[in-house]
Amino acid sequence: MHDLHTLQVEPLIRRALEEDWGYGDWTTDLCVPKDGKASAQLVAKEALIVSGIELVSQVFHLVDPSLQVDLQAKNGDQGGPSKPLATISGSARSILKGERVCLNFLGRMCGIASLAREYVRELEGTKVQLLDTRKTTPGLRILEKSATMVGGARNHRFGLCDGVMVKENHIRAAGGISAAVSGLLDSLPPTLKIEVETTCLAEVKEAIQAGADIVMLDNMSIEEMTEACQWIGGRALVEASGNIRLDRLKAVAATGVDFVSTSSIITQARWSDLSLLFEQG
Amino acid sequence: MHDLHTLQVEPLIRRALEEDWGYGDWTTDLCVPKDGKASAQLVAKEALIVSGIELVSQVFHLVDPSLQVDLQAKNGDQGGPSKPLATISGSARSILKGERVCLNFLGRMCGIASLAREYVRELEGTKVQLLDTRKTTPGLRILEKSATMVGGARNHRFGLCDGVMVKENHIRAAGGISAAVSGLLDSLPPTLKIEVETTCLAEVKEAIQAGADIVMLDNMSIEEMTEACQWIGGRALVEASGNIRLDRLKAVAATGVDFVSTSSIITQARWSDLSLLFEQG
Amino acid sequence: MHDLHTLQVEPLIRRALEEDWGYGDWTTDLCVPKDGKASAQLVAKEALIVSGIELVSQVFHLVDPSLQVDLQAKNGDQGGPSKPLATISGSARSILKGERVCLNFLGRMCGIASLAREYVRELEGTKVQLLDTRKTTPGLRILEKSATMVGGARNHRFGLCDGVMVKENHIRAAGGISAAVSGLLDSLPPTLKIEVETTCLAEVKEAIQAGADIVMLDNMSIEEMTEACQWIGGRALVEASGNIRLDRLKAVAATGVDFVSTSSIITQARWSDLSLLFEQG
Amino acid sequence: MHDLHTLQVEPLIRRALEEDWGYGDWTTDLCVPKDGKASAQLVAKEALIVSGIELVSQVFHLVDPSLQVDLQAKNGDQGGPSKPLATISGSARSILKGERVCLNFLGRMCGIASLAREYVRELEGTKVQLLDTRKTTPGLRILEKSATMVGGARNHRFGLCDGVMVKENHIRAAGGISAAVSGLLDSLPPTLKIEVETTCLAEVKEAIQAGADIVMLDNMSIEEMTEACQWIGGRALVEASGNIRLDRLKAVAATGVDFVSTSSIITQARWSDLSLLFEQG
Amino acid sequence: MHDLHTLQVEPLIRRALEEDWGYGDWTTDLCVPKDGKASAQLVAKEALIVSGIELVSQVFHLVDPSLQVDLQAKNGDQGGPSKPLATISGSARSILKGERVCLNFLGRMCGIASLAREYVRELEGTKVQLLDTRKTTPGLRILEKSATMVGGARNHRFGLCDGVMVKENHIRAAGGISAAVSGLLDSLPPTLKIEVETTCLAEVKEAIQAGADIVMLDNMSIEEMTEACQWIGGRALVEASGNIRLDRLKAVAATGVDFVSTSSIITQARWSDLSLLFEQG
Amino acid sequence: MHDLHTLQVEPLIRRALEEDWGYGDWTTDLCVPKDGKASAQLVAKEALIVSGIELVSQVFHLVDPSLQVDLQAKNGDQGGPSKPLATISGSARSILKGERVCLNFLGRMCGIASLAREYVRELEGTKVQLLDTRKTTPGLRILEKSATMVGGARNHRFGLCDGVMVKENHIRAAGGISAAVSGLLDSLPPTLKIEVETTCLAEVKEAIQAGADIVMLDNMSIEEMTEACQWIGGRALVEASGNIRLDRLKAVAATGVDFVSTSSIITQARWSDLSLLFEQG
Repeated sequence: MHDLHTLQVEPLIRRALEEDWGYGDWTTDLCVPKDGKASAQLVAKEALIVSGIELVSQVFHLVDPSLQVDLQAKNGDQGGPSKPLATISGSARSILKGERVCLNFLGRMCGIASLAREYVRELEGTKVQLLDTRKTTPGLRILEKSATMVGGARNHRFGLCDGVMVKENHIRAAGGISAAVSGLLDSLPPTLKIEVETTCLAEVKEAIQAGADIVMLDNMSIEEMTEACQWIGGRALVEASGNIRLDRLKAVAATGVDFVSTSSIITQARWSDLSLLFEQG
Repeated sequence: MHDLHTLQVEPLIRRALEEDWGYGDWTTDLCVPKDGKASAQLVAKEALIVSGIELVSQVFHLVDPSLQVDLQAKNGDQGGPSKPLATISGSARSILKGERVCLNFLGRMCGIASLAREYVRELEGTKVQLLDTRKTTPGLRILEKSATMVGGARNHRFGLCDGVMVKENHIRAAGGISAAVSGLLDSLPPTLKIEVETTCLAEVKEAIQAGADIVMLDNMSIEEMTEACQWIGGRALVEASGNIRLDRLKAVAATGVDFVSTSSIITQARWSDLSLLFEQG
Repeated sequence: MHDLHTLQVEPLIRRALEEDWGYGDWTTDLCVPKDGKASAQLVAKEALIVSGIELVSQVFHLVDPSLQVDLQAKNGDQGGPSKPLATISGSARSILKGERVCLNFLGRMCGIASLAREYVRELEGTKVQLLDTRKTTPGLRILEKSATMVGGARNHRFGLCDGVMVKENHIRAAGGISAAVSGLLDSLPPTLKIEVETTCLAEVKEAIQAGADIVMLDNMSIEEMTEACQWIGGRALVEASGNIRLDRLKAVAATGVDFVSTSSIITQARWSDLSLLFEQG
Repeated sequence: MHDLHTLQVEPLIRRALEEDWGYGDWTTDLCVPKDGKASAQLVAKEALIVSGIELVSQVFHLVDPSLQVDLQAKNGDQGGPSKPLATISGSARSILKGERVCLNFLGRMCGIASLAREYVRELEGTKVQLLDTRKTTPGLRILEKSATMVGGARNHRFGLCDGVMVKENHIRAAGGISAAVSGLLDSLPPTLKIEVETTCLAEVKEAIQAGADIVMLDNMSIEEMTEACQWIGGRALVEASGNIRLDRLKAVAATGVDFVSTSSIITQARWSDLSLLFEQG
Repeated sequence: MHDLHTLQVEPLIRRALEEDWGYGDWTTDLCVPKDGKASAQLVAKEALIVSGIELVSQVFHLVDPSLQVDLQAKNGDQGGPSKPLATISGSARSILKGERVCLNFLGRMCGIASLAREYVRELEGTKVQLLDTRKTTPGLRILEKSATMVGGARNHRFGLCDGVMVKENHIRAAGGISAAVSGLLDSLPPTLKIEVETTCLAEVKEAIQAGADIVMLDNMSIEEMTEACQWIGGRALVEASGNIRLDRLKAVAATGVDFVSTSSIITQARWSDLSLLFEQG
Repeated sequence: MHDLHTLQVEPLIRRALEEDWGYGDWTTDLCVPKDGKASAQLVAKEALIVSGIELVSQVFHLVDPSLQVDLQAKNGDQGGPSKPLATISGSARSILKGERVCLNFLGRMCGIASLAREYVRELEGTKVQLLDTRKTTPGLRILEKSATMVGGARNHRFGLCDGVMVKENHIRAAGGISAAVSGLLDSLPPTLKIEVETTCLAEVKEAIQAGADIVMLDNMSIEEMTEACQWIGGRALVEASGNIRLDRLKAVAATGVDFVSTSSIITQARWSDLSLLFEQG
């Protein structure tokens, strides 16, 4: 599992707190005594897959290192109303100042993990893995890709530098699939694979012959994908993409592809409903 | 309409580009000639409300000031497959490097504006206005609140500093609604209104008597809300909140409240489907 | 009282230390042994109102977390030569490296708090409150507004987003007070009040009728202000502004206004004289 | 004259605008049409020495590069109500958004330059130069030292790295003036001079014999200073410091010192009164 | 060729200028008139391979957008005393303020490119490519890897995220090569290849059987490498590493490896000698 | 010795880690268990002068505050294969994530210190000190100048603000050496010395008569330098510069100069060979 390291996440939390506080929190500062104490439970108000649980500690400790944060769930767990995910205790002001930011991170991440899990369950019993894409909320990609992985998907490349994806426009600019791939084979860092987007069997063949490591079958029918996989015969990894809906997953998986990729697990995810319950002092 | 000023948006775009590029875009740099030219249209692949159109220019001009960007739609427009939203032309490399970031901003913003517009339509013919909340993606609040406004909603406070919202925990810490409000009336910047969250008529009365400017009716039934509005009789603004679903909007609006607030227009929004279509050179 | 949270203040201190150190502190590094110890008292060399005392800890702990900082006064206290405000002990190098930055923050903040207190004393026995303005040193607004509040004033809005102030140019651009206010009433976050700047009774009347929450009487005579307050009769808050001098405060207060605002408590404040006294080792 | 380079000043302006705008300028965005035009004059409402005039362009051009800014005065000029310092024309919204930040920079800088000029006038006809100190508003040192220089003073070191100042605590830690200076002579970048703070003739002698380049006479009487200068006889530069008041300047200058340094020109400066006058459209 | 995009390079230049200027450039500001003009040529004082030429424009245009910069060489060119690399003309102050930073970037980059070219020449006539490593100056990796590529080398991964390198410690922690690789094959973004570091033929065999894409032969003898390449027989790419000296390159290349990697082209590179020659006005 | 303060170094380390990690360390996260422990020794694989040892703690503690770092050498020590420089123990993942960045800082710094020491040894027995220059890797000047000092050299100015160096172009623009120096004497912060670059005895004389504190003899012959030193006779410090090679140092030192400056100790330095040896668990 990919680590969300504090050094990577802290700037995101810091910005989120700045955004939420602006010049300061008038309500809390004027209503709650400086030395008031409180204890609050982070609870899921609906069934969800836990994701981003490490941010609970990171948010509240950034707000106030003296807060005590006890995590009672771990990423990937099935959560629900019956059992709190975490307990935070200490300064009442500090808990109130971190509340919304914590919930906003978790609501988004659990929502994505939960939807990814739904897709992944459809693929159970097959060898096919679900991949995410680069359609992610600007600035939060490491969080959203952590959530898809927690949900059971596998990450596709994180950006333009950790993988090559030769698309229609690259192919046209390079003068064809063969020309594009051969230029890449000469100059690319050898640790990166070359994936080529194809739309028909002729392109699949050209990509394989040019030396592509991964062939993406873009918006093909079940029959076309089956034929392509048979032709490829293991000489490259195969990724199905485009028009991937939950109810079509099993059929796509049966074509012989290695991966199914979809942006839906991120772009169609609704936030999970979470809340902070304060205990009566 | 609230301006998204370049100085506010540029850091968000810069971070999004850094995130997407990482060490650099191997595919484009190795496949597309440095002096290659292209032209591309930003198109909506489904019906949507346009939001964030100013970011199209800002993204592509940050990537490459020499790109020409023609906006063919404005925020709030109804968009769809029949007519492009914008045309970008110039360096092919530059267009490809900005493509994903541009689409990610727009997909999110148009999705929110489109869902907000659905809610707002339900309120047409009433005097009731739809409000958003602070449940927004961390770091992108000014964009998401711009989208709700474009969709026809009205913004609630942007953070903890531009409005007061006295919630259950503030009330308990202060020793009751009256104590909380009276402390605020003494010390708060006088340009800020005081909103009090209430759950029953008794609390509504206490809030009004304490001097609240806005009373939030939290998770009340239609009957309770009607009774509360009648009792208040215009002495404060009234906001209905909690369990606000599309199919319940008209009934809530009929209770006499001034505002209905919901996080759903942001947290339940799916991304709009947009794409960049390159023209054959 | 508004909290100066560490997350808000730390970037200011960090920049101040960078500014003061540049490439490094030659004198201290070459004259004082690395393991030398010292103890120093922060003392007021004249009567002052203590403000920014929390920055003493924050500055020295940022320079060196191992320093021991004991605060012996709290914000709002009357300070003077007879009693130290704080004691810092530990590494001599670290104390010397933080000295100037600490004193510069405190000198400015205590100076403002002390002048604000003078103005506030003139208003004692009246119900009128003193307000500050947005005339503050660029980048240090949260500190300077903390100082005015510590001195007994009340903060006006912190920026352009946490309150509305309709001035002459807005009125002219909108086509009159009524047009300006009515546009705001439709679209503004409902948590913000609308303040209108007026220069004569006719404008006061138009502002009240348009629905202004606060009316500013700008540069009016005592008689005009009295007449305006009587006409308004509690339908809006009233703020006197312009030409507010210490010797005129009582007369202004007697006109019936709720607030007197002045930038003088910040722009005319001299620094308080503070010093760090090292004890003989 | 020391240049305030755009690269150095831009971050200060950017932070000031962020601080002033927060989430955005509601009043202007809701009252002033997007395409409204205006023209405004920057005027001095009292006699002052112009300082920071280059920031007028920098502030308004950062807000909106399409604004036209005509500077009608230059740094060091005597300004007053009779003649505007600058004219800004273009988008009304943009001028209103930059107004306060521009005035806050100029008010502070002109105030310092004006006070410095008063002190400098007292020294006219002598060979003595006025020096500033490191008592400056945290984060704005380059601006405030630009203002003292514009006012006619000469800058002392800007920070701890561009000069050495051996004070009492350094001396004690090093084991005496001779030990301190000799360590510095061995290891300091040779481009930096060594200044030693002294409080009596014995210390002056020790400093000179140790090789100090500059001797500071701290809080000495006129007689002591005269004696010290005679003893030194040009072997080092001499700086008078401590208790430097306007009415004592001439007497101090007559003692034979080369420099008089005072923090007063910064810490005791009041802001100059400036304003932006919009022309009737 | 990998593009050094302005958005990536500008922060590096900005920091370099801040570092070099500190509080400002006294010599230039006090000696050179504000409106003085100059023209200067960037010249190589020894034979070198040009690298980083795009930074010449970027540095001087960041200092002063009005400077005219004419590039007379391109990256990869052979440079020498006979022909200038670039000409800069405009404000004399601006050229002097950018001079050292420009030369420091170019001196380092040309030095690396020149050394890389020496190594690459040794491999001419073979199919073997030279790879760089992650031993680069902290913060300047994109520049230094641009220089190696300009010199004719091929980049290895830029960081820990764009390639997998399984080293001894990973192998031990995972419980062997097979376990390590099989875990990676399950979870890694499929666009990344897996490279395994091996020290003997047994490890080579295990790596190949586990499914490694690239096998690194670490510090092996010529005989061992030859044997390994024969055994591998094209089933994976092969990289020779460790103890790669210029005089051993040809022999290593003859073993059948695909790549030779060395940090020497960066860590052993001396700066090229470049200078800015001002023309007599 | 000049302190490398954590506040100055931390941003450099943070950027280096971001650069090296990118989106994250796949190999370590997927091969090494989260709770795996390790211990590693930092060892020199060749003779070197230790420099930057404080960064070992700073790097690993920034990655993971729970790591234990024991430094077994101090800056300036002679290091070699026989004795480790430091031991790091704790989380295996954390050690692996910090390894490369730590080694890259140390390799560069020890390389410089070691080369500086070679030059300094040549000057032993003379009163002449070796100076560095501003030819340093952009962004790392404080580290590289720390290394030269650790090696026994003395730092020249760090930037354009902490010393004045009047070069040919300044002289020409000012209208001669006398004009340049006299302008500086009037306006420069008095804590800075004035150094003038000269190329012949005539210029040396003009510089001395104008009041230069330091005279640089640029690219002069041994005879010219000897003559210049005799003429100067202690009235200014003298720095030899240009064409300073190791084999010429003693002869230059014998001419009577105070300092010899060279960029070679930085620009010609190769990295020292260091490594992290993990112990078998």
